Amino acid sequence: MKAGLLIIGDELTGGSVQDVNASFTARELDMIGWSVSAILLVGDDPPSIISGLDYLFSRSDVVIVSGGLGPTADDITTAAVAEGLGLPLETDEEVLAGLKERFHAFNIPWTENNAKQARFPRGAEVINNPAGTAAGFYVKTEKGAVVVVPGVPREVRRMIPEGVAPVLERDFAEERTAKARRTLKITGLSESRVDEIIAGIGPFPEISLGFYPHFPEQHLVVIARGRDAGEAAARLEDADKRIRRALGGHVYGVDGETLEKVVGGLLEERGLTLAVAESFTGGLIADRLTDIPGISRFLERGIVAYSNDAKVELLKVPADIIEKHGAVSRETAEYMARGVKTSSGVDLGLSTTGIAGPAGGSDEKPVGTVYIALAAPDGVFCRKLSLRWGRRGIKEIGAQTALDMARRYLTGGAVCDE
Amino acid sequence: MKAGLLIIGDELTGGSVQDVNASFTARELDMIGWSVSAILLVGDDPPSIISGLDYLFSRSDVVIVSGGLGPTADDITTAAVAEGLGLPLETDEEVLAGLKERFHAFNIPWTENNAKQARFPRGAEVINNPAGTAAGFYVKTEKGAVVVVPGVPREVRRMIPEGVAPVLERDFAEERTAKARRTLKITGLSESRVDEIIAGIGPFPEISLGFYPHFPEQHLVVIARGRDAGEAAARLEDADKRIRRALGGHVYGVDGETLEKVVGGLLEERGLTLAVAESFTGGLIADRLTDIPGISRFLERGIVAYSNDAKVELLKVPADIIEKHGAVSRETAEYMARGVKTSSGVDLGLSTTGIAGPAGGSDEKPVGTVYIALAAPDGVFCRKLSLRWGRRGIKEIGAQTALDMARRYLTGGAVCDE
Repeated sequence: MKAGLLIIGDELTGGSVQDVNASFTARELDMIGWSVSAILLVGDDPPSIISGLDYLFSRSDVVIVSGGLGPTADDITTAAVAEGLGLPLETDEEVLAGLKERFHAFNIPWTENNAKQARFPRGAEVINNPAGTAAGFYVKTEKGAVVVVPGVPREVRRMIPEGVAPVLERDFAEERTAKARRTLKITGLSESRVDEIIAGIGPFPEISLGFYPHFPEQHLVVIARGRDAGEAAARLEDADKRIRRALGGHVYGVDGETLEKVVGGLLEERGLTLAVAESFTGGLIADRLTDIPGISRFLERGIVAYSNDAKVELLKVPADIIEKHGAVSRETAEYMARGVKTSSGVDLGLSTTGIAGPAGGSDEKPVGTVYIALAAPDGVFCRKLSLRWGRRGIKEIGAQTALDMARRYLTGGAVCDE
Repeated sequence: MKAGLLIIGDELTGGSVQDVNASFTARELDMIGWSVSAILLVGDDPPSIISGLDYLFSRSDVVIVSGGLGPTADDITTAAVAEGLGLPLETDEEVLAGLKERFHAFNIPWTENNAKQARFPRGAEVINNPAGTAAGFYVKTEKGAVVVVPGVPREVRRMIPEGVAPVLERDFAEERTAKARRTLKITGLSESRVDEIIAGIGPFPEISLGFYPHFPEQHLVVIARGRDAGEAAARLEDADKRIRRALGGHVYGVDGETLEKVVGGLLEERGLTLAVAESFTGGLIADRLTDIPGISRFLERGIVAYSNDAKVELLKVPADIIEKHGAVSRETAEYMARGVKTSSGVDLGLSTTGIAGPAGGSDEKPVGTVYIALAAPDGVFCRKLSLRWGRRGIKEIGAQTALDMARRYLTGGAVCDE
């Protein structure tokens, strides 16, 4: 089955607001086996809405309309859709009573323009809005079937899966396939390398794979199909196992997990504490770790040792080591990791030193030369990377690599296997 | 004049990629006095492209097509557009030679499928691509006028202003109005407060104002119109002055400036150095500052003093101050700022301490209670905020406020005027 998406709002065609409802809706529809024929964005203007509906009817089983359901004068979607379908508008008394109740509960004075949100084309089925005031509706006529929802992304994210998908599945039943979905989060490999590895272990029957670069990591969305949920889930598990085997330790988590969340969880599990000494990453590792609630039990401190003085004074890096090998060197990185571990009395010390540019590079140590070290009870591990990115990119890969070294150590994997 | 936008790609209708070219193009067109009639996204499928063109021709002076210009089999845009316009494809020998040269220079073997990128509809004018391989083109027929550009956002951001806008201005001259544009970057005020203040000083004849929240700051886009560039620029300057007078010190910069860049520039101008002691902001202030190239000359160090031990040991906060007033208190914040200033020998010390939640709040000090202090040669300034956001939001407003206190001090403004 095919859906056309009609997204309404002057702010969208004017470019001041970026639509996010279309891609969300397309992904949700994909989960129930629907595809999107076309996405059309027009302004708050009845003729555009009506001609847009006609255009989308000609290539879709259903048109899903989003936006323009508010109480103000420029919210004309319901009236335009009714006109396009040749249906009169009628007040739904139940919705009207609910609106008035809501206003009363929130102590907001009722004004008559709000009654507009209780008017729907004749024969429409109301679709409840669990996240806002404006209800949606569904109406099926000879001209075509239309679903209308508000434009507020927070409301759309609730109404499509909870209200719209069930209606479509009820009225447009076809040979159904169940789906199961998982996002594998991958770090330390380029998109093309992941692609190549996965291509080498295929084919994956009844599985769709989608690659989504999320710098500095890669997300691989695995969707498995089956005759029922059990079969889809079993196929997903099988694909997951094969992919993880091929990608080795590069899969750090799934779905909503972040690398810092995984590291925080592992510290908690192992009962270990961490401190961080950052030079070129400039606080980014600490910033990411401190996004995790409760991390204060495991993260003792962070030092942003930008100057050599700070490295000597706070991290006890011997001045002659910096003199001899340079602030950007394996030796300095290792002293920094040991220094922050010892001085803060924690189990693990993580350090970074490098040249983020654009200035500061040399022939011997060009911009992008970075060292990342982990001091643990059983030794010090250090990686050198040569990164070809801008300043922010170098910081982001540096922080990612440091967190991943901690993860690999905490899971008992090789810390520096590349 | 009106443009229709036709954006092509299976990844867009499938929802795996979010289009950003349409809103960018709409904003750029607005700058030359054009509006967008509709935005249509379809898959890589010739019939959809052809019918999409027809739909957009019926409501636009020009259709701008983006996407599907690569060398592979699924890149069918040029052929579909030519078919839609009833034009044969012809090879542009100059473009072909340029392509081969480029491959040679990058040491990539030439394969025949790349020759596709040198084929254009008969009569088309080539639009140069300064950021990639695939050139765009412009062709005007009786059916309608079409501009085609690639889909890569980095390339679109160059080609629309540099290649497409000049062609449109040349071929579709009408009564022209000149425009001048500036984004004012505002911190420390809510969107509704900015709106209210601006409404109070209006009207602004021949000026459009657009409000764009960029948490935790507000961006106000001011577009002035005039009969020529001089008149538009003069109106912009006048509006800028009135708005700044009304918003006081809350406008920290314009256009591409960031708050950290402004602070870095002020430190350089004044010849002053800075060190940062962060608790709840967890390294975010240092991370933002270290995005600025060359900041190492002004930022001596950062301390992420998450534990009380770190506050006592590294920042010389007296243990009895923490004992008596708590780690989250004005006294601790002020000691932290003074401590990092003194121990690192800099001119300015900036500190944050607070409860980012979700746990750790109390009746007396609920989640969101934060203190931010600045120690300067002439005294210590401290602000208390009560923030109602999630953990990340509290960190972001905290870091923003700290940087803004430094900016206000460095510009000689009141550091704590609210």
